[in-house]
Amino acid sequence: MHFTPRFTPHFTSARRLDDGVLDRDFTLGEIPGVLWTPASATPSAPAPLILVGHPGGLHKRLPRLVARARHYAARYGFAVAAIDAPGCGDRPRDTAGDQARADFRRAIQAGELTDEIVHAFIVPLVDQAVPEWQATLEALLSLPEIGGPVGYDGMLPIGIRLAATEPRIAAAALFGQTFVPDALREEARKVGIPLRFLMQWDDEGMERQPVLDLFDAFGTKEKTLHANMGGHTGAPWFEVEEGARFFARHLK
Amino acid sequence: MHFTPRFTPHFTSARRLDDGVLDRDFTLGEIPGVLWTPASATPSAPAPLILVGHPGGLHKRLPRLVARARHYAARYGFAVAAIDAPGCGDRPRDTAGDQARADFRRAIQAGELTDEIVHAFIVPLVDQAVPEWQATLEALLSLPEIGGPVGYDGMLPIGIRLAATEPRIAAAALFGQTFVPDALREEARKVGIPLRFLMQWDDEGMERQPVLDLFDAFGTKEKTLHANMGGHTGAPWFEVEEGARFFARHLK
Repeated sequence: MHFTPRFTPHFTSARRLDDGVLDRDFTLGEIPGVLWTPASATPSAPAPLILVGHPGGLHKRLPRLVARARHYAARYGFAVAAIDAPGCGDRPRDTAGDQARADFRRAIQAGELTDEIVHAFIVPLVDQAVPEWQATLEALLSLPEIGGPVGYDGMLPIGIRLAATEPRIAAAALFGQTFVPDALREEARKVGIPLRFLMQWDDEGMERQPVLDLFDAFGTKEKTLHANMGGHTGAPWFEVEEGARFFARHLK
Repeated sequence: MHFTPRFTPHFTSARRLDDGVLDRDFTLGEIPGVLWTPASATPSAPAPLILVGHPGGLHKRLPRLVARARHYAARYGFAVAAIDAPGCGDRPRDTAGDQARADFRRAIQAGELTDEIVHAFIVPLVDQAVPEWQATLEALLSLPEIGGPVGYDGMLPIGIRLAATEPRIAAAALFGQTFVPDALREEARKVGIPLRFLMQWDDEGMERQPVLDLFDAFGTKEKTLHANMGGHTGAPWFEVEEGARFFARHLK
């Protein structure tokens, strides 16, 4: 049987980094992305793929995302891809999405966040982003140096939907947060794949209990919670190593 | 300055295991113990020491404790020691301790556990065990193939007191449980060393919230909570690897 992807990545740049990783920009239709592949990835030894998502509104070349992606590739032999979400990074602004994001941020500042406001921001973003990630993984799996299965390491709401619905996703690492509408919490119950769930115990931007409740909601029997100190952006570097080993256990 | 230990271990057996680890029984006064040292431990390259505690009432050669100890030694180059707690394993029964343990178990069965009953069982055990662990680490540090700093990986109440009071303990890995009297919870606030705290999310034998509250109580700024599925005795093997890497970060 010949596999014909519906989408093919179009590479627009390529450079070999000093750690041996090949760093390539690509576009997939209107989606801009980056692919990092280790020197070890060849057609006879294809590398498993990890999709790395960025926090909402930020860029696919966010420095701490790039550091994680390169480490996964250089040290652990994974192929790693990032794309810009709709309305983010190098993509054209999205007026409706910008409005929903602005409403969401205003409600957080004012302490007036409701499930409706979270829903209005998060659900359209997930509805758009998940098919784009699916197109991306399908396109990248068509490359001879990349093989399945696939991991997702990124934004929690997108990860819930991908993990619950996309059979090629075999393991997910998600960063716990409270901004998950009730509808997506229900989807979390359907997740059956291995899950690594990271949270900051002393996160100044969110309450602890709803994050723990969300971890509890995931239906999978193979889930691990890691909680650390250091505030919202203070997750320690060793969690990147432990994340890589989590994917190595499940994708290799 | 010449270091003169007050105690010296008396070795009563020695055998080299197939993984290269030297397994020796010892006594230290009335305390029976086991020491595992890796082939790499020499006077010019002394191995850091990990003290491995067993759950109350069980034996220092409990199979899953031995598996963890040998793995730490063979794979990660640690010296590892276990001793029998007062009244446990190869030690003479302790009538008062047995009574307190029986009362404690009966209260659990009957759903009538109180802080007084926990206190009556746990605090005398901690009061006896902590000085014995201190004598053990002092004696073992006098061996030329063992060097500081020292880690503790074991029973939570003993670990709280050791971590809070013994300056040679540089890192602790503890298994979360609810049977901690209020007095020891207060001592947890004084712990300032790196802490790895493991719990089972679906532990059938204890409530979740008091375990989370106990993790929260530790005063150290460098603490990590790991929660897994699989019931009380179902902690996954990869946590042994992650435990070893935790100690490698802090003891080497």
